[in-house]
Amino acid sequence: MGRNAASERLSSLDGQAPESTDFANYFCTYAYLYHQKDMLEDHKRTGAYYNAVLQNRRQFHGKVVLDVGTGSGILAIFAAKAGAKKVYAVEATDMAKTARKLVEHNKFGDVIEVIQGTIETIELPEKVDVVISEWMGYFLLRESMLDSVLLARDKFMKPDGAMYPSHARMFMAPIHTEVGSRRNTEFQGSMEGWAEFIQEMQSFYQVDLECLNDTFRQEQREYYLQTAQWCDVHPSQLLGPGTPFKSYDLGKVTIEQIKAGIEEEFEMDVVEGGPVHAFCGWFDVAFRGSDAHPADTPVTLTTAPDPTGATHWGQQSFYVVPPVECSPGDMLKASIKVDRRKDNHRLLRVEMGVSIDGQPGSSRQLAWNIE
Amino acid sequence: MGRNAASERLSSLDGQAPESTDFANYFCTYAYLYHQKDMLEDHKRTGAYYNAVLQNRRQFHGKVVLDVGTGSGILAIFAAKAGAKKVYAVEATDMAKTARKLVEHNKFGDVIEVIQGTIETIELPEKVDVVISEWMGYFLLRESMLDSVLLARDKFMKPDGAMYPSHARMFMAPIHTEVGSRRNTEFQGSMEGWAEFIQEMQSFYQVDLECLNDTFRQEQREYYLQTAQWCDVHPSQLLGPGTPFKSYDLGKVTIEQIKAGIEEEFEMDVVEGGPVHAFCGWFDVAFRGSDAHPADTPVTLTTAPDPTGATHWGQQSFYVVPPVECSPGDMLKASIKVDRRKDNHRLLRVEMGVSIDGQPGSSRQLAWNIE
Repeated sequence: MGRNAASERLSSLDGQAPESTDFANYFCTYAYLYHQKDMLEDHKRTGAYYNAVLQNRRQFHGKVVLDVGTGSGILAIFAAKAGAKKVYAVEATDMAKTARKLVEHNKFGDVIEVIQGTIETIELPEKVDVVISEWMGYFLLRESMLDSVLLARDKFMKPDGAMYPSHARMFMAPIHTEVGSRRNTEFQGSMEGWAEFIQEMQSFYQVDLECLNDTFRQEQREYYLQTAQWCDVHPSQLLGPGTPFKSYDLGKVTIEQIKAGIEEEFEMDVVEGGPVHAFCGWFDVAFRGSDAHPADTPVTLTTAPDPTGATHWGQQSFYVVPPVECSPGDMLKASIKVDRRKDNHRLLRVEMGVSIDGQPGSSRQLAWNIE
Repeated sequence: MGRNAASERLSSLDGQAPESTDFANYFCTYAYLYHQKDMLEDHKRTGAYYNAVLQNRRQFHGKVVLDVGTGSGILAIFAAKAGAKKVYAVEATDMAKTARKLVEHNKFGDVIEVIQGTIETIELPEKVDVVISEWMGYFLLRESMLDSVLLARDKFMKPDGAMYPSHARMFMAPIHTEVGSRRNTEFQGSMEGWAEFIQEMQSFYQVDLECLNDTFRQEQREYYLQTAQWCDVHPSQLLGPGTPFKSYDLGKVTIEQIKAGIEEEFEMDVVEGGPVHAFCGWFDVAFRGSDAHPADTPVTLTTAPDPTGATHWGQQSFYVVPPVECSPGDMLKASIKVDRRKDNHRLLRVEMGVSIDGQPGSSRQLAWNIE
């Protein structure tokens, strides 16, 4: 044996994991200060939250705030700095102990109460005015942490309370990239390695593995070509603008709607010509407060392609092999489905149907996992 | 958020995981044909099993065999080739379906019965003459799969049955390597990065993270210096011969003895001089059959440093920073403890006390995790 149990191809057996598995597979990652540092030093991220809170002091001053998944406690500290009367900072992992230390050291111990537990199991002594959280995963929805944030809203927020962030949008755009072609070459190389391997197995041990060719090919195709990848796309790679294909009002959307996944139709303009090697997906969130308590200074955090480099979320590349041949002025009609994976509810499955408008026969059906 | 849930720093919450977590974290790795290929094409491994079975046909001919964790089914097929009357091939993951396909395709469907399940939960209609299994993890004991193999022995093997392999030994040797020093440099670099980071956090957000310095230092020290690493040591790096500090008779050792871990004292000769940069650990297993049914041709599978390259297990390097200054002719007195990790019973904790014989004050206490 001797394989690494912490495999990069990790998955669980079926659907929603029991809490213990979820701790082992998901929460534990956040128990390392190293990972907290990774997130904190993404200054587009941390700075957006800082601005959203400190440039809207009026929405925090004298208010009761709940920070869902506080990690190191940074957002709770921002809220306290803005004058919150009380901040409940909830964290499932042992990082709660670090948050407590940081809160004390920065002299907010009288305002911030760090609670180690999950939103699903804890209780609070009062309702809150603001729910703040940094819950976004790759392609917005990976990690499925939004469920817990919406539960926090329904369980603890006053009817006229405000969500920070308050809105989220998902985008898709056609891009040029050499990576899809490179991964296809790696896939072909892997299949050549397999051919040599089964010859060896026949010659050394007289065992015929040919009947596994299709299984191996399918497994490798999924790995190399049907798995979305983190990328830092330069805007010059965009063949057209990003289309927002889904938006959420986080004050109103229900947990059931989130769990049901996404099924949308949309269009993408191809402004630059050339083959579409991949679709690039990203998201943004906005901090606008609620109708009753709108933010004075709305703030947006985008993870769109940026010449100064990506946030730690990057974008997700969905490779198209072979590429879709387009011309400038073409319009791509797309339908998209985004679902939680059956084998792990924190991972995603994305299916897209794409065709060039007015070109019968150009229709393609594509699918990827987000690991 | 946006961290990868399948982190390389994976651990579970406490001790032995519930079965569901164990499936998610451990067994799933073996459900990929890619990983089966990795193991199969380690011909030192697969060839040793092939020889152990096919050069001892008399021990398999007309016998009932149990293969624990059959994976692709290869060992079951070897046993059938050697003339086994019946082979029960037990596999927990969906790889059982692949094993079934391979067994049929190679026309052993009348001899081999693939059973999808765990040894802990399945039943067999008869006792077996031979238990064969490839259960060894890094440093022999990582993965803790031996528990299930010994349970299979106690539950299903006839009193005079034979274990394949029948014996196992663990070795430790002092080595020369530059990697420990390089990792120490990386550790120092990481701490410099932290110093810059906390300055930024103060300057950008007026939050003081200095109180976390020690926690971060400890976390990074563990990661860079107190985590054993896979390595392919060249014999020229050995400063002395490997000392076998633990041996197991797999026909006799109890599950309780295995679970209790290792606590041994031993000596290592330093033949070549120079500082000891690391200790290198490996194992071997022998296929000798049982007292009642000894192998006609005993076979050994070693994972010792080899100029032709390592098996897929490699060796484990336990870095010593700063190195232990030795001279040729020195003798190192060592005590070792190997325990299962409290946070994940399939991972290991290794503690060693080392001193140069006759040099008071040379004593060092060292500890590492095997991830």
